[in-house]
Order: sequence, then structure tokens, then C-alpha cells
Amino acid sequence: MKERGLLIVLSGPSGVGKGTVRKAIFSQPDTKFQYSISMTTRKPREGEVDGVDYFFKSKEEFEELIQNDKLLEWAEYVGNYYGTPIDYVESTLQEGKDVFLEIEVQGALQVRKAFPEGLFIFLAPPSLKELKNRIVTRGTETDDLILNRMKVAKEEIEMMDAYDYVVENDQVELACDRINAIVTAEHCRRDRVARRYKQMLEVDF
Amino acid sequence: MKERGLLIVLSGPSGVGKGTVRKAIFSQPDTKFQYSISMTTRKPREGEVDGVDYFFKSKEEFEELIQNDKLLEWAEYVGNYYGTPIDYVESTLQEGKDVFLEIEVQGALQVRKAFPEGLFIFLAPPSLKELKNRIVTRGTETDDLILNRMKVAKEEIEMMDAYDYVVENDQVELACDRINAIVTAEHCRRDRVARRYKQMLEVDF
Repeated sequence: MKERGLLIVLSGPSGVGKGTVRKAIFSQPDTKFQYSISMTTRKPREGEVDGVDYFFKSKEEFEELIQNDKLLEWAEYVGNYYGTPIDYVESTLQEGKDVFLEIEVQGALQVRKAFPEGLFIFLAPPSLKELKNRIVTRGTETDDLILNRMKVAKEEIEMMDAYDYVVENDQVELACDRINAIVTAEHCRRDRVARRYKQMLEVDF
Repeated sequence: MKERGLLIVLSGPSGVGKGTVRKAIFSQPDTKFQYSISMTTRKPREGEVDGVDYFFKSKEEFEELIQNDKLLEWAEYVGNYYGTPIDYVESTLQEGKDVFLEIEVQGALQVRKAFPEGLFIFLAPPSLKELKNRIVTRGTETDDLILNRMKVAKEEIEMMDAYDYVVENDQVELACDRINAIVTAEHCRRDRVARRYKQMLEVDF
């Protein structure tokens, strides 16, 4: 009996470096993740391959998938649809592979609803740590600047609440290490492991 | 505001290799854990230092600590008491250090009651995996042997249920990697991180 894979969702505020961290993870020679291929209605660019870079679909096909709840999340952007096909994710998880999805915050919230058992990782800007230092040494900055930073920090902290883990992106390499550690740890969680052993015992005897 | 440390409790069936894994973790040059020093009423052996190898106490002192609930767990063995002093663990956690406790299953269950927020890791024998292979290829073994292995496996799986994580001790190095990953991941858990940030915001404004 193969262990089902995990759906790993990396998200966070725009500009935090999600794409950079995702690329760094997939450039590791021993990465065990399967990148989740998005679906789109935009035309393929030169060199782009269907089923590798994207699943390319017509507008009609995409809208039918929306109607039939076949997308984990989707959005319209500059006249084209973009989304995550549920069937591809599901079949990859069934093969026992961990699927990695890097996505904007709004999309992550959609995925959380459709797939609550996913592993939701919030990539946090290091400025939250900086903020702490700035607060500690306050007086060296104008009150307005501090208040504005506080507002941003509060909004970011509220965004965290829908996630399982928070990874600070202070250094890309450290952020990758933490993400890999989180996935390793999740595979060791007792409820997963014990369930697997129990299923094994039940099925075979 | 310093983040409070985690209490990491490594346990598992006797003979699984808890001591070997603990020693391997503490032989890593970059280990960040503080080993939890036990308390005992047995006499120091040559070279043993109070407060390093053990906290050495008289029988009366130890029994007073038992009375006052000052031990996370304790047991009597060959006429001597052995236990884990709560004050040492508590003050080390307050300093922001992760405390590592390697302990028998009965002691771990006591700690779980006294300290439910601890991180309980069950070290599992690789025979559970072997068992799976044996079941798959069954027919090559006597039914009695298979049934006996099943009984042992079931007992071990039931012991797992009080733990947060299960680490298979197939190779000591891999087991250490998994334990380190679990601790890294736990430090990234959203409830810990967000709570810390929220406290920071509340305290300072």
C-alpha cells in the first residue's frame, strides 16, 4: 500500500519571493516534489509544451471545468483563465508523490476550501523581524513610518491565520531547508504513520 | 521577547535504539538541543559530576520533590530513584533552548500528562516495515511466527497513539535527520509564530 502524497501549498504576500524559493527548491538535485502544472486559456508561447509548462485549454473547455468543480482554484487575468486542475493533482498524490503548488494568497484560500488536508505554508517577509528591531529601537523613526509598518505587519499576520506553517524568507536557502524539513516532519506525523500501519494490519489479516 | 524552547521527548519500545539515536544527535557539532539532566539517589560513580551527568540527591530530598510535584516523571530502579526535575526543564525552556529528553515509554506517558505541550516522538523499530514485506511474501514463514509478529506490531502501534510523531529507526543517521526536521518544522508552526508576532504587536503598542 503506497502512502498518499501531500499537497504542499506555498503562498504569501506579493513580493515576498515565492517564485524564487520555488525555483530554488526545484533546482535541488534531490527534490522529491512534483510541481503542480497549471491550466490556462492563453496561447502557448514559443517553446512551451502542453502538459509540461501548462495544460493549454480553450475558453469553453476551461469554463466547463469551472462548472464541474474540476479546478482547485482559478482566476482570470488579462482576459485569460489560469487554474489548478484537480484531476492532475489527485492522480499525482495517488501515485505517492508530494505535489508542490506555488500560488497567490487568494488562490491559496480557494485551495484550502477545496482541499483542507493540504499543507499550507506561508512565506513571510523578513521585514517582520526587522520590524521587531525597529520597534525596539523606536524613536529613531517617525511615528508615521512606524504606524505604517505596523499596519502592514498586522495585515500580514492576519493572512497567516489560514496557514499551517510560517517560513521566514530571510535567506532563500534557509527558507528551502525549512520547507523541506516541514514536509519530512509531516510524513512522520503519528496520525499519518499509525493510520498506514493500522490499514496494513486490517487489510492483510 | 525570546521564543520559549520546546520539550522534545524521544521514546519507544525497549531495544529500539533510543540511546544510540540520542548519542548520535548530541555528537552532531551543530546540535541546538539541551540534554535534560536526570536526578537520582544513586551514588555518583567515579568521574561523574553533579549537575552534568546527574543531579545527585538524597532519598529524603528526592521524596520531597515527589511530594511537591517537582518531577516531570520518576521511577524506582534497583532501590534507587531516577527522575526528571521540572525546574531544570522549565528554566532551560525559558532561556529559549529546546530540551531533549530520552526516556522509557512509561516515563514518557507521565511526562505527557504533566507537560502536554511537549513534542513526543516515538522511535519505531524498522521491523514494522520488514513485517510488511513479510506479510506480502507470506507463505514462506510459519503461521505462528507471522501471528507473533503481528501481535508485537499491534502492541507497538498502540503505543504510538500517545505520540505526535513516529520516526522509523531504519538507519541512525536518517532517524537523526528526521528528528531534526521535526523540531525545525515545529518552530515554523503557524500557531507558534503568529502568536509570537501577535504578542510582539500587543506588547509594544
